Amino acid sequence: MPVQPSAEPGPGGRAFAALMAVPAPPAPDPLLDFVFAQVWQRPGLSRRDRWFVALPCVAAADAEGPLREHVYAALVSGDLTIDEMREAVLHFAVYSGWPKASLFNMTVDEQWERIHRDRGEPVPEPTPLLPLTTPSDPEARLLVGEQAFRDINCVPYEPIRDNPYSGAGILNFVFGEMWLRPGLGMKERRLITLACVAFQDAPLPIMSHVYAALKSREISFSEIDEAALQFGAYYGWPKASRLMQVIEEQKQRVTDEWATEGVA
Amino acid sequence: MPVQPSAEPGPGGRAFAALMAVPAPPAPDPLLDFVFAQVWQRPGLSRRDRWFVALPCVAAADAEGPLREHVYAALVSGDLTIDEMREAVLHFAVYSGWPKASLFNMTVDEQWERIHRDRGEPVPEPTPLLPLTTPSDPEARLLVGEQAFRDINCVPYEPIRDNPYSGAGILNFVFGEMWLRPGLGMKERRLITLACVAFQDAPLPIMSHVYAALKSREISFSEIDEAALQFGAYYGWPKASRLMQVIEEQKQRVTDEWATEGVA
Amino acid sequence: MPVQPSAEPGPGGRAFAALMAVPAPPAPDPLLDFVFAQVWQRPGLSRRDRWFVALPCVAAADAEGPLREHVYAALVSGDLTIDEMREAVLHFAVYSGWPKASLFNMTVDEQWERIHRDRGEPVPEPTPLLPLTTPSDPEARLLVGEQAFRDINCVPYEPIRDNPYSGAGILNFVFGEMWLRPGLGMKERRLITLACVAFQDAPLPIMSHVYAALKSREISFSEIDEAALQFGAYYGWPKASRLMQVIEEQKQRVTDEWATEGVA
Repeated sequence: MPVQPSAEPGPGGRAFAALMAVPAPPAPDPLLDFVFAQVWQRPGLSRRDRWFVALPCVAAADAEGPLREHVYAALVSGDLTIDEMREAVLHFAVYSGWPKASLFNMTVDEQWERIHRDRGEPVPEPTPLLPLTTPSDPEARLLVGEQAFRDINCVPYEPIRDNPYSGAGILNFVFGEMWLRPGLGMKERRLITLACVAFQDAPLPIMSHVYAALKSREISFSEIDEAALQFGAYYGWPKASRLMQVIEEQKQRVTDEWATEGVA
Repeated sequence: MPVQPSAEPGPGGRAFAALMAVPAPPAPDPLLDFVFAQVWQRPGLSRRDRWFVALPCVAAADAEGPLREHVYAALVSGDLTIDEMREAVLHFAVYSGWPKASLFNMTVDEQWERIHRDRGEPVPEPTPLLPLTTPSDPEARLLVGEQAFRDINCVPYEPIRDNPYSGAGILNFVFGEMWLRPGLGMKERRLITLACVAFQDAPLPIMSHVYAALKSREISFSEIDEAALQFGAYYGWPKASRLMQVIEEQKQRVTDEWATEGVA
Repeated sequence: MPVQPSAEPGPGGRAFAALMAVPAPPAPDPLLDFVFAQVWQRPGLSRRDRWFVALPCVAAADAEGPLREHVYAALVSGDLTIDEMREAVLHFAVYSGWPKASLFNMTVDEQWERIHRDRGEPVPEPTPLLPLTTPSDPEARLLVGEQAFRDINCVPYEPIRDNPYSGAGILNFVFGEMWLRPGLGMKERRLITLACVAFQDAPLPIMSHVYAALKSREISFSEIDEAALQFGAYYGWPKASRLMQVIEEQKQRVTDEWATEGVA
């Protein structure tokens, strides 16, 4: 960040400008160099996939300027469709709390309008919410939620219904409805969840979601390493260090389980 | 959050509008349905008590719009008095850090003025700070702080004085002054504290405050379950999951202790 | 973080090992390279000063392993005395909330004992809390707090007394006692505060503390740039980007004020 007088943009500034579709900052900056000229350029995780780690981190950090730039760039590049972006907001809200998601949601509307205004095009009609694709009947929804909980978490059990948190919350809404919504792939939902549990610091959810991402084979061992680095660039070294430790443990656990199951 | 063109508000939008005393959002929204039409409407924790979980979560999330709406609604409904709200800001500041509380404090002033402006009434004079109800002499204040620490935490010990954090901070101010201020009931302080330790993620404080809330019987077993769901709706599943785990452990611990003590 | 099989430590791993007085991690790691081989080695902010940014960030991130390593290294190197470290915990508690500081405080005790155990020396008696150096009488304490608020924030006004947050909290304790405690210099307190307001995201406190750090001349223009980079390495790019924007604005403001005042 230290600025040299009358300097040119550094490699990070140029990479930032290219990714964000904005002018480059006027001077070299070691943090921009690291995040944009190094991390974002690495192989092993696609640029599209990197958005699903970066967007929740920027939204969680309450940094309005960076949030606007990231949402704009992810949409204007076509890396994410507007429907994917809006599903990402909902998924983020569930894993980070809806007050934080409120600014993210407004920023998506604002940047989507900006993109169309710049193009002289009308903003398209949004995709209708209804009909929902999950059952409305409470008993049927709980059954669906229990199955989805087992499938998505790669576990043979589900939490009890008769508890407000796990029944009314986890089974009825989070797994009975939210995770099953069309419009965002399972890999993308796993990347968003990974970022959210990592900055939320809750030990059991970090463990269970890292495990399920690997066990489901929806995120590969090398992709999750890159996702942890992408996370570290956006949320700092201490939280990334903790995430990386859990990743190493869960890689070992999954490898052992696959050996026992006779698969590789 | 996805919006249907020219749609009617969903049940969540109508519940949100009723609670917040604002117009309903123009379209159904799965998250509003969950938070406002389901969670807030549940029995087991009063609407008044739910504010003491929701307000710190919204303040901690740095969400300016939702913070304004929540402060306004809690005051204009009469669910909280202005003195209770201002004590809640101080309690929140201590448990979440003064910088985060700065916006909360300004928002309370701003919404309190708005309510009186809308009513064409002058804003009443604030309640005077002095005299404090706790002792001024440092030795006497530490003694009071040590007793309050034991009573409020339901433990037979207190931390050492000769440490800036536990002496100058915890004993001298947090328990020697802040928790003992009139104007906010102990149950309400416990709900605010529960929300704050849950989003702050500090393992020992989560454990000790859940334990004390239950052991003191100031929050019942079913109320704390509802408080955890209310928290999850506002701060996301990962942190609520951790809180819920601690709640289950501490219910067992308290139940065992009551059995040993021959009480039920 | 991605690990190459049977690799040697990279430059970041070696720098990490030297700073932390621990063995180097077994493989190169781009995040360690950036944080430890690049940022920590830069001129413009002393190694001692960098701890006052890094320690609050690690404590805020709830990363137990990194927190132990950082506290140990800062103490065993002699970069911080134990009294300075304990004051840093109290200052951190006030600006980040007591629950987060609880683990920090325990970690300091634990690592201080470890250092003495390793040396075969007894742990020295802690410095006594009493007598406090600030007045006990509430009215006198508020007067001291009002003066300290103006001096430390470099403003000609103070907040109202008759408000629990600003009266009982800010004036009575934060500025009437905590900031005035001996045992930690004003520059060190400003660096801790800078880190805390930056990760807490509260717009007004970020602005006011950056302004006061520069206006007081207790942190120079080039030091605050380095502090922002140190912060970015520990808490991620989005929050650092916001901090840096405020720094640029406040440098301009302070420069303009000095020009008007006829000083440079």
